[in-house]
Amino acid sequence: MIKIGVIGYGYWGPNLVRNFAETSGATVACVADLNQNRLDLVQKRYPGVRTTTQFQDLLTDPSIDAIAVATPVHTHFELGMAALKAGKHLWLEKPMTETSLQARKLIDEAEKRNLVLIVDHTFIYTGAVRKMSELIKSGDIGSVYYYDSTRVNLGLFQRDVSVISDLAVHDFSILDYLLGEQPVAVSAVGTHHFPDTPENLAYLTLFYDSGMIAHINVNWLAPVKMRQILIGGSSKMITYDDLEPSEKIRVYDKGISFTDDPQQIYEMRVGYRTGDMWAPRLDSTEALRVEGDHFVDCIENGKKPFTDGSLGLRVVEIIEAATRSMNERGRSVVINGVPMHQGRRIV
Amino acid sequence: MIKIGVIGYGYWGPNLVRNFAETSGATVACVADLNQNRLDLVQKRYPGVRTTTQFQDLLTDPSIDAIAVATPVHTHFELGMAALKAGKHLWLEKPMTETSLQARKLIDEAEKRNLVLIVDHTFIYTGAVRKMSELIKSGDIGSVYYYDSTRVNLGLFQRDVSVISDLAVHDFSILDYLLGEQPVAVSAVGTHHFPDTPENLAYLTLFYDSGMIAHINVNWLAPVKMRQILIGGSSKMITYDDLEPSEKIRVYDKGISFTDDPQQIYEMRVGYRTGDMWAPRLDSTEALRVEGDHFVDCIENGKKPFTDGSLGLRVVEIIEAATRSMNERGRSVVINGVPMHQGRRIV
Amino acid sequence: MIKIGVIGYGYWGPNLVRNFAETSGATVACVADLNQNRLDLVQKRYPGVRTTTQFQDLLTDPSIDAIAVATPVHTHFELGMAALKAGKHLWLEKPMTETSLQARKLIDEAEKRNLVLIVDHTFIYTGAVRKMSELIKSGDIGSVYYYDSTRVNLGLFQRDVSVISDLAVHDFSILDYLLGEQPVAVSAVGTHHFPDTPENLAYLTLFYDSGMIAHINVNWLAPVKMRQILIGGSSKMITYDDLEPSEKIRVYDKGISFTDDPQQIYEMRVGYRTGDMWAPRLDSTEALRVEGDHFVDCIENGKKPFTDGSLGLRVVEIIEAATRSMNERGRSVVINGVPMHQGRRIV
Amino acid sequence: MIKIGVIGYGYWGPNLVRNFAETSGATVACVADLNQNRLDLVQKRYPGVRTTTQFQDLLTDPSIDAIAVATPVHTHFELGMAALKAGKHLWLEKPMTETSLQARKLIDEAEKRNLVLIVDHTFIYTGAVRKMSELIKSGDIGSVYYYDSTRVNLGLFQRDVSVISDLAVHDFSILDYLLGEQPVAVSAVGTHHFPDTPENLAYLTLFYDSGMIAHINVNWLAPVKMRQILIGGSSKMITYDDLEPSEKIRVYDKGISFTDDPQQIYEMRVGYRTGDMWAPRLDSTEALRVEGDHFVDCIENGKKPFTDGSLGLRVVEIIEAATRSMNERGRSVVINGVPMHQGRRIV
Repeated sequence: MIKIGVIGYGYWGPNLVRNFAETSGATVACVADLNQNRLDLVQKRYPGVRTTTQFQDLLTDPSIDAIAVATPVHTHFELGMAALKAGKHLWLEKPMTETSLQARKLIDEAEKRNLVLIVDHTFIYTGAVRKMSELIKSGDIGSVYYYDSTRVNLGLFQRDVSVISDLAVHDFSILDYLLGEQPVAVSAVGTHHFPDTPENLAYLTLFYDSGMIAHINVNWLAPVKMRQILIGGSSKMITYDDLEPSEKIRVYDKGISFTDDPQQIYEMRVGYRTGDMWAPRLDSTEALRVEGDHFVDCIENGKKPFTDGSLGLRVVEIIEAATRSMNERGRSVVINGVPMHQGRRIV
Repeated sequence: MIKIGVIGYGYWGPNLVRNFAETSGATVACVADLNQNRLDLVQKRYPGVRTTTQFQDLLTDPSIDAIAVATPVHTHFELGMAALKAGKHLWLEKPMTETSLQARKLIDEAEKRNLVLIVDHTFIYTGAVRKMSELIKSGDIGSVYYYDSTRVNLGLFQRDVSVISDLAVHDFSILDYLLGEQPVAVSAVGTHHFPDTPENLAYLTLFYDSGMIAHINVNWLAPVKMRQILIGGSSKMITYDDLEPSEKIRVYDKGISFTDDPQQIYEMRVGYRTGDMWAPRLDSTEALRVEGDHFVDCIENGKKPFTDGSLGLRVVEIIEAATRSMNERGRSVVINGVPMHQGRRIV
Repeated sequence: MIKIGVIGYGYWGPNLVRNFAETSGATVACVADLNQNRLDLVQKRYPGVRTTTQFQDLLTDPSIDAIAVATPVHTHFELGMAALKAGKHLWLEKPMTETSLQARKLIDEAEKRNLVLIVDHTFIYTGAVRKMSELIKSGDIGSVYYYDSTRVNLGLFQRDVSVISDLAVHDFSILDYLLGEQPVAVSAVGTHHFPDTPENLAYLTLFYDSGMIAHINVNWLAPVKMRQILIGGSSKMITYDDLEPSEKIRVYDKGISFTDDPQQIYEMRVGYRTGDMWAPRLDSTEALRVEGDHFVDCIENGKKPFTDGSLGLRVVEIIEAATRSMNERGRSVVINGVPMHQGRRIV
Repeated sequence: MIKIGVIGYGYWGPNLVRNFAETSGATVACVADLNQNRLDLVQKRYPGVRTTTQFQDLLTDPSIDAIAVATPVHTHFELGMAALKAGKHLWLEKPMTETSLQARKLIDEAEKRNLVLIVDHTFIYTGAVRKMSELIKSGDIGSVYYYDSTRVNLGLFQRDVSVISDLAVHDFSILDYLLGEQPVAVSAVGTHHFPDTPENLAYLTLFYDSGMIAHINVNWLAPVKMRQILIGGSSKMITYDDLEPSEKIRVYDKGISFTDDPQQIYEMRVGYRTGDMWAPRLDSTEALRVEGDHFVDCIENGKKPFTDGSLGLRVVEIIEAATRSMNERGRSVVINGVPMHQGRRIV
C-alpha cells in the first residue's frame, strides 16, 4: 500500500485525493495546503486524512512513500526537488516546471536516487487518446498530414502561466504520445486582454521534419466550450470531440486521390473518396484512475511512467520556444529538441 | 432591364445565371464558356438564353450592359479589363485578381469610364453578416477583442489558387465590413499534401493596431465540414455557425471582469459573468439575390457597391502578404495598407 | 422519350417539373394550374413548356403519355380517374386518395387498362431508406423490436388533410417497405389548436402481430425541426436523422442480454453490450430523380412500381383507421389489412 | 443539525449520502443496506458514518431525526410507514409507492404525526424546471397547447417497475408543477422485449380539460440518450434539452396566426411568425442539494415540501391509470383525480 502525501488542495488537488483514495494500491496519508479553509474541506470529506499547512511535515514523515504536487507552476521545482531529496517518489502536475533547466535537474535527481517521477499529462491515459494511438500505429490512418486542435471556453484565468501552459500542453503531450517524432520549430501568436496578465488566447503551429504540421487554438475567453481535434491522414481521418458523451472518436474513410482524367477542366485532377464513418468503442475508465494505478505499478515494480520526466521536459521545451515565438509575432523558433540520454542532453 | 452576359459556367456560374434570371431588374442575355457541354446544359435549363464559346461575342454585343466573370482567377484581369474597355459594367468573382497591381488597374479603368465594378464577396450580403455588423456598430459587443474563424471540409481542390484565396478571402471581406479598421500585418503558415499543388491547409493571424487579432483556419482536407466564427468582445461575444439551419448567430452575455477581492488565492482576481444567450432572427433572403439587386441598383442609380473594387483590392493585398508570410513559416509580414485615393495609392 | 403533363404547380409541383425536366428519358410537355400567376412562373423558368388553366387540355392531348397529379388530396381521385380513362399513365402525390374505396377504384382502372400507377412516396427512393432496408433484410439488426419516428417543425398547415396525411404517411410507407409485415391495429391521439382546422399534432402507435411496435410523433406546431427515426433490434440498433448532412444513418452495436449472475441484487439479471457505432456511406442521388427514372422504366418496360397503387392503398387504410382511433381518444382500431388480389379484396 | 439515516445504498443512495453529507444543516448518521459490500464502500468513502444491515437500527435510534428510503419501490410503503411510526421525518424515492392506497395511508400517517413527508421528484428542484415554471406563470408562453417529452437511452432495466415508473414519473411531476391543472385521462401503450420483465418502452398521452395534451415517450432500449421536452404555447414555445451542457432551456418567439388573405390558395389562411430565440441563464446548483436544503427547512420550520405526499400520490394515480390503459392497448382511462383534502380524498 503506497502512502501518498498531496501538496495543494486548490483546483486539481481534490481530483487527485479523490482518485488516490479509491485506488486499491494507494492511500492518501496527508494533505498540505496554505489555506486552512481548504484543509477543513478535506477534513469534512475525508475524516481519516491528516492535514497540515506545512508541506515540510510530509517530507519528514517516513511513512509517506510519494508526494503529489498540485500547486501553482512556479512552485513545482522547489517542492519537487525537496520531495526527491527527502527520498519520495514524485507526482508533478503539468506543466512540469517553469523552465527546461529546472525539468532537467528534477530528472537527474530522480534518476540518481532511483525514484519514480511522473508528470500528470492526464490525457495520455484516456481511452480516446489510447485508441487514436492504436489507429495511427496500426497504419490505418496512413501518413499523418496534420493535427488541428481547438481548446476554447470561458476558462479559469491563471495568474502565473499563459493559456499555452494551461491548455496547449495537452496537445504537446498527446502529439508526443501519438507520433514517433518531435516538432522541430514552432510559430506562435498570442495576446492578452487584461493588464498585467499572461496571454489568454494563442494560436500555435508546430513544424515536423516529416512535413506533418500541428496547429493549436487555445482561448480562455470564448463564449462556447470546444475540445476538438482533427487528424488528417493519407488513408483516413479522425475527429476527437472530448465533449461528445458517447462517440468521442470518429474515423472517416475519406480522402483525395489524383487522377489523370483530362476531362476535369474546372478542377484539379482530383478524386474524392467518401466512405463509411466508424466510431470505435472506447475504454471509459477515468483517466486519473488509470494513471494512479500506473503510478503505483511504477513504484512497486520499478517501471518507467508513460508520462515520465523526459516527456515533461519536452513539453516545457515547446512552451519555451512558443513563448519566444509569441514575443516575435509568429516568427518560427527552433525547438531545442536534442535527444536526451538518461535524462541528460547529449550535447 | 439590365442585360447581363456571363463568362464561365463552371462551379459558380450556374448560381449567377439562376439568380440573375430571377432578379426582377435583370436578365441573362448570353453565357460564354469554353466547354460546349456546359453550354448545352445552359440550353437545356434556360432555352431562351444564347450561348457561345467566344467570350468576345459578349463584349461586342451592344445590347449587353454588364459582364459577370466567373472563371479561374488567373483570367480575371484580362477578361475584366476587356469588359471594361468594351464599356460594360463588371461583376468579378472573388478574389478579384491575382495581384494587387491588376486590381488597381481595373479600379482605375472602371473609374475612368464611370462603370460599376463589383467584386462578388457574397458573405457581405448575408443576413448573418449584416446582423453582426449591426451588433458591433451598436456597441452591444463592446470592444472587439478577437475574431476566430474555422472553414474546413473535404473541399474542391483548385489548381490555380491556394485555400487562402478560396476560403480565407471570405473572412478578409467580412472583417473589412465589420470593423472600421484594416489589418497591419499577417502571420501565416500553410502546407500542401500533393505534389505541384497550392496550399490546401493554412492558418493565418491578422494583426490590428487596436490590438484586435483575427485568426483564420482554412483546410480543404478535413473529414467534417465546419463554418464557424467566434467574436470576443469586452461586453458580449458572438458565435456564427453558417451550417446551423435556423440560429446561425448567437449572442452570449458572457465575459470577465477583474476584481480586488484578496481572497482569491488560487485564481486571478477575476469575475465571470454568464448571462443569457440570444439568437436574433436573420433575414433569410439568398445573399446572391440581395447582391444581384444591389448590382442593378448601382448601375441604374450610379451608386458605389458595398463590395467595390477597393474592397476587392484590400483583400488581394492581404492574400499577397499572407502568401509571403507562408513562404517564411509564419514570419509577420506588413500588409500594404496605404490608403487609396480614388483608386490610386497616395504614395 | 416519355411526355409528361403535370397538374398542379403549388408546393410540390415545381419539384416534379424540375426533376422530370432533367430526367433523361422524360420531358415535361405541359403544366396545368388554376392559378395564372403560377403558370407565369413556369413560363419564366421553362420558356419551352406549355401551360394551361384547363387540366382537360392535358387529357385530350394525344402526345402526352403520362399525367402527374400534384393537387390537394380531395381532387386526387377525380383527376387520377380522368387521367387513367384518357389512357394516361398516372403519377399521384401522397396520400393517394381520401378514401380506401377511391384507391381501390384507381387500382382497378389502372390494371384494367394496363397503365402504370405510381404513388409518390418519395422516401422509399432515398439512399437512407434503401440502406436501412438492406441492413434489416441482411439480418444484421436481428428481430426488429420497435420503430420510433419524430417529424415535427413549424410546418405548412394544410386545409384539407391532417398532419397524419402530411407527415405520418412517410412512416407508413417506410414501414411497409422495411418490414415484411402489415400493422394489424393502430392507436392514435391528436388535437388541433385552431378552429375549423384538421389535427396539427398527433401521436400514433401501430401494432404488429409479431410484437413489433411502431410509434409516430407528428406536429406542425413545434419550435424546432426534427426528422428522426430510431429502430431497435435484437442485435443492433439504427438511428436515421434526415437533417444530418452527412451521416444520416448510424448503426449501433448495442443491446441487452440477460444473465444468471445472482450477485446483481439491485438490478435485473441484465448485461449491457456497447460496441462500435458505424455510419455507412449512402447513395446521395436525389430521391425524386431516382423515382422519376423508375417511373419511366416502369412505363417503357411494363414493370410494377415499388410504390404502386397497392402500397398507396395500404397507406390510406392506415390513415382511415388512425383517424377513427383519434376520434375515440386512442382506442385501438383494427386496420383493414385483408390481402389484395389483383387490386380487389378477396373477401 | 438534522441527523439523517439512509436506507438503501444501491443506485441512488450514494447520491443522497453525498448530498446530505455536504448539506450544511444536515448530517448522515447511519446507512442501512442488506448488502455488506455496499456498506464497506460507505465506510471507505465516509469513515465517520455508521452502517448496518438492519434498517430497524435506524428506527430505534432516538438521535436520528429523519429517514431517507432509497430502496426498490415495492418496499417503500412498509419502510416508509415504519419510519413514520417511529416518529421520523420521511424522504421517499420516487415513485412514492406501488399503489395509490399505500400513498394515501402514508400521507395520513405523516399528517397525524405532524411529520414532514417529501417525495424525491428531483426535477422540480432544477434550475431548468423552475425557469420554465416562471415563464409559464408570467404569461410569456401564452396558453400551453402541448407538452412533448422524450426520455430514451440504453437504460438500467429494473425488475419491479416498468419504464413508466422509472422515467415517465419525471414528466408527471414536472407537469404537476408547471400547470395549474391535473390530467383527466391517459392513453398508454407499451411493450417489453424480454420474458417476465416489465414494460421497457411506453408511449403515453395525458388529456386535460383545457385541451392541453401531454405526450411522453420513454424507452430503456434506445441506442442514443435523449432527454428533451417541447412545450408549445399560443405566444411562444420552449425546448428543454437536459443533456445540453449550457443552454438547456430555449424560448422561441415562433407561432402561427390565421389571416383572411384570400390569395393563399394552396395553404390555409395562416401566418407564420418567426422571431428571436432566447436561452435564459439558469441556476446551476445541483437539484439534490436544493432539495436537501428544502427538506431541512421544512423539518426545522414546519413547512410543506414542494414535492409533498399529495404530489407523490397524484403521480402514483397516473401510473395506475396508465398501466390500466397499457393493458388495453391505449384505451383512454380516467385518472382518479378527485381533489385531496388534507391528505384524505373528499369522496
